Amino acid sequence: MLAFQVARGRLKAIQKPIPKIRPGWALIRVRMAGICNTDAEILRGYHQFRGVPGHEFVGEVLEVTSRSAAVRNSWIGQRVAGEINISCAAYGYQPVCEFCRRGLPTHCARRAVLGIVVHDGAFAEYLTLPLQNLHPIPANVSDEQAVFIEPLAAACEILDQIPIRRFRNAAVLGDGKLGQLIALVLQSAGCTVTMYGKHDAKLNLARSAGIGAKKVRDHAPDGKNVEPNYRLVVEATGSPSGFTLAQQLTEPRGTLVLKSTFHGAAPVETWPMVVKEITVVGSRCGPFAKALALLRSRKVDPRPLISRTFPLEDATEAMQFAQQGRVMKVLLKAAR
Amino acid sequence: MLAFQVARGRLKAIQKPIPKIRPGWALIRVRMAGICNTDAEILRGYHQFRGVPGHEFVGEVLEVTSRSAAVRNSWIGQRVAGEINISCAAYGYQPVCEFCRRGLPTHCARRAVLGIVVHDGAFAEYLTLPLQNLHPIPANVSDEQAVFIEPLAAACEILDQIPIRRFRNAAVLGDGKLGQLIALVLQSAGCTVTMYGKHDAKLNLARSAGIGAKKVRDHAPDGKNVEPNYRLVVEATGSPSGFTLAQQLTEPRGTLVLKSTFHGAAPVETWPMVVKEITVVGSRCGPFAKALALLRSRKVDPRPLISRTFPLEDATEAMQFAQQGRVMKVLLKAAR
Repeated sequence: MLAFQVARGRLKAIQKPIPKIRPGWALIRVRMAGICNTDAEILRGYHQFRGVPGHEFVGEVLEVTSRSAAVRNSWIGQRVAGEINISCAAYGYQPVCEFCRRGLPTHCARRAVLGIVVHDGAFAEYLTLPLQNLHPIPANVSDEQAVFIEPLAAACEILDQIPIRRFRNAAVLGDGKLGQLIALVLQSAGCTVTMYGKHDAKLNLARSAGIGAKKVRDHAPDGKNVEPNYRLVVEATGSPSGFTLAQQLTEPRGTLVLKSTFHGAAPVETWPMVVKEITVVGSRCGPFAKALALLRSRKVDPRPLISRTFPLEDATEAMQFAQQGRVMKVLLKAAR
Repeated sequence: MLAFQVARGRLKAIQKPIPKIRPGWALIRVRMAGICNTDAEILRGYHQFRGVPGHEFVGEVLEVTSRSAAVRNSWIGQRVAGEINISCAAYGYQPVCEFCRRGLPTHCARRAVLGIVVHDGAFAEYLTLPLQNLHPIPANVSDEQAVFIEPLAAACEILDQIPIRRFRNAAVLGDGKLGQLIALVLQSAGCTVTMYGKHDAKLNLARSAGIGAKKVRDHAPDGKNVEPNYRLVVEATGSPSGFTLAQQLTEPRGTLVLKSTFHGAAPVETWPMVVKEITVVGSRCGPFAKALALLRSRKVDPRPLISRTFPLEDATEAMQFAQQGRVMKVLLKAAR
């Protein structure tokens, strides 16, 4: 099969065998894959991943390894999205780790992560995942919408972590793909959202969805005494400076949800967290079911975030295109 | 009166008039004052404070400005400790700020802070505070114990912020004064505490109070894969590197209480907070009543932390003595 592998900071086309599947796993033909900023971080060395990246996808189940014909029949031909954390139970490890036992498979101590840690991802014709990771896609959700389920679920994770109804207003820092999805999700939960970003076109995209948007000026990146304070701030800039501004925008005893992951350390003042007694909530992968419900009900439509769709064959070019500052979501589409 | 003022990174003896008091305030003769690491930070420029430092004290009420003889009589001669945040209500501002209205005077937007922000502190013969900040000291609590109420209250703040009964074990990072008080407070709440520190003598002090103690080796400051993970970690090292180790020691979905304040930015990797979905709780000043109850009931005895007591006249020397690595609490004692 055609696949794209990390090679010297770029994606390189390779041919490799169609992967085999373990009991309880599925072979999936990738219909569409999304390029995420994490993929760019992986090209820069994040997680030292040297396999096939890609963790946002919608695909079709081709094969299932199960003794039960009912299980096989229920999955084969099904259009699916898939959770990216592959927990130790899926590999048949015994005993399962403490986090799997506690019902926190996304924190499994021995997890693989689709296209990020150990396990090959979606920038290929085929991928494999455990059946327990799969979510069928209803007919009224298109491939272009379904490919956003993974990042949309990450945005929904915030709703599982904090009592959102106590917050009427929120600031979202970052006008990129994840910031936009978070703003839409918070808005769908009844929050009045103000987005802070650096790109006029991206801020306008937020405005067209009814979200307030403010330009962060480069000459005043610290925003000191300029902006109002918020009881809820979500940091999704993907940049080291975001955390400093986020602390400034969070009011005393407020909540700061941290979403950005990037490679390396950045100089950060930590005393504002202490002096203002801020609660910082680290937030990563989220509930696919909630994301799917938002798409199905049309409460969130991510399609305006799509900048361009490339055929899978052009993944190398697509990845370079995606790394330009003004580009939002770039998709890869399988040939048939 | 004799007072000590910040001058070129040191404390300088000066003479200044005994301060006047506003309605609802008290004039207090300082009996004993404690030197805190924050005082050393102030000498280095923290908060740009140029007045009289000192925010840990026990004193005696000499004068009260009140029309009510009952109020005056109830306070005059009373031995007291005092909360350090002076909220806008105490200055008679109208209307009071949002945080005072919400019952959070320690986060008052216009607060002064005894010996730290605007208002002269306890390294002097006399100081002033609003009556609402004062707590009478029971007879069975000595001056040497009462002078610890402010930092002990800061340690107790953790008990107000997190549901401590859900945590059976905790790691406390830092073997200094605040770390020791936090370990004692968590222990008093039923936690099994492991202290991580760099100083054998200080770790032994913790051990003699029944606290587990581990040496953090300088050649392996990151502690990667070496130490167990904890659901609750309290960072009280007072040093920039503490936050990194604290993130490593906190298990996924765990809670990290951040206590250290210091001047300046330090290089910090923030992705572990996100990937492990850690909740970081900034924690500052705390409930004096709770601290007083711990002293009164003898559940916590801070006196083993006292390294040396100097007469107030020798505050300059005492401050220099206190800044040595091995020294714990240094006290200043008034002449009579």
